[in-house]
Amino acid sequence: MHRHFEDELRALKERLVHMGALAERMIAEAVCALVERSSASIDSVMAAELEVNDLHVETDERVVELLALQHPVAADLRLLVMASKISNDLERIGDQAVNVCESTRFLLESPAIKPLIEFPVMAQTVQRMVRDSLDAFVRSDVPLAHSVLDTDDTVDAYKNQVFRELLTYMMGDPRTIQRSLSLILISRNLERIGDHATNIAEEVIYLVQGRDVRHHFEQRKRAANG
Amino acid sequence: MHRHFEDELRALKERLVHMGALAERMIAEAVCALVERSSASIDSVMAAELEVNDLHVETDERVVELLALQHPVAADLRLLVMASKISNDLERIGDQAVNVCESTRFLLESPAIKPLIEFPVMAQTVQRMVRDSLDAFVRSDVPLAHSVLDTDDTVDAYKNQVFRELLTYMMGDPRTIQRSLSLILISRNLERIGDHATNIAEEVIYLVQGRDVRHHFEQRKRAANG
Repeated sequence: MHRHFEDELRALKERLVHMGALAERMIAEAVCALVERSSASIDSVMAAELEVNDLHVETDERVVELLALQHPVAADLRLLVMASKISNDLERIGDQAVNVCESTRFLLESPAIKPLIEFPVMAQTVQRMVRDSLDAFVRSDVPLAHSVLDTDDTVDAYKNQVFRELLTYMMGDPRTIQRSLSLILISRNLERIGDHATNIAEEVIYLVQGRDVRHHFEQRKRAANG
Repeated sequence: MHRHFEDELRALKERLVHMGALAERMIAEAVCALVERSSASIDSVMAAELEVNDLHVETDERVVELLALQHPVAADLRLLVMASKISNDLERIGDQAVNVCESTRFLLESPAIKPLIEFPVMAQTVQRMVRDSLDAFVRSDVPLAHSVLDTDDTVDAYKNQVFRELLTYMMGDPRTIQRSLSLILISRNLERIGDHATNIAEEVIYLVQGRDVRHHFEQRKRAANG
């Protein structure tokens, strides 16, 4: 060990923030590929995914090393376990951006069926959720973490709006069914990204307050939807 | 500490196996609700989910306690970190079973559009993946873990078959669009369950062989699909 444990923890946090910035860029570029009909943006997402995957593996290795060498307890121990979970969520956010690109590849083969106004707004919303959840983590900012949980409802509302509109397209013209389905799946990929940011925010609240909000929020959300 | 560390690890493994059995039952009952049009099965899935969520929280607590009190190194340390990940995957499998129930609730409001032959087969396939991935974990059985990875292709094939068939229903009769979409989403929920079992199997291979197959498999799968 060349560095103090505090420095190691700081480096780990920085790595997660870097991963988060990459994941955010992947979301922006995936939706840019869709809206601008640009396959160059798809290539860029695919390249970024390899980087996020490497960071994910490295973070896990680092966490295990620090656990083994430093025997942290209490808050530091929880922080390390949480870093591993956050890294997992960020990696899955990258996967969802790749899924958006895969549907987009199919969509670029045919003309657009409708102007894609909601998608950039939805992407910006979940990008901000990702950024805020990581800021909340770095600064142990519980109110910011709560704001991420609240934004999840906005994302759900966009997803439902996209669904209802595309349903009318499909009903009106069966030739639009496959393309509409791809767009519905993309809106669900973006929703899933919001869910991962929510996971991170819940972990932050747990870390700071020692109160486990994870399943409470999930159940509240389910009750609101159902 | 009243028990030896080995006993603690054994108890932790048993808890995960119990969670896995619950998750498996949730999958079976969710698909039973769909195919038998039984809302009683839905209630049973919802009850099981609360139990899985509690086990998830308890497992995390236990892992953190054991890390703090025992300062495990090497294989034991990795085993604990992995137990936390497996618990996460099992909890998300439970979430997917709940998602199946939510789509099923909508489907039970109208007549069935087609005989649901593929769904029970698909459910049995992913249930076996979940069971095998946990058996592989408990017995450190790498060949069994590899068989789980291989089965993932079968699940994808079912999902694609369901998608193609439902597309023809939607094209032929727009009144079936919403119900077809719900069935497509259910097939994707089952596919996601297979992905979680795959995650567990990859962790087992990593734990036993120290070789990280996680992103290699993901990239191979993507190359095969795309």
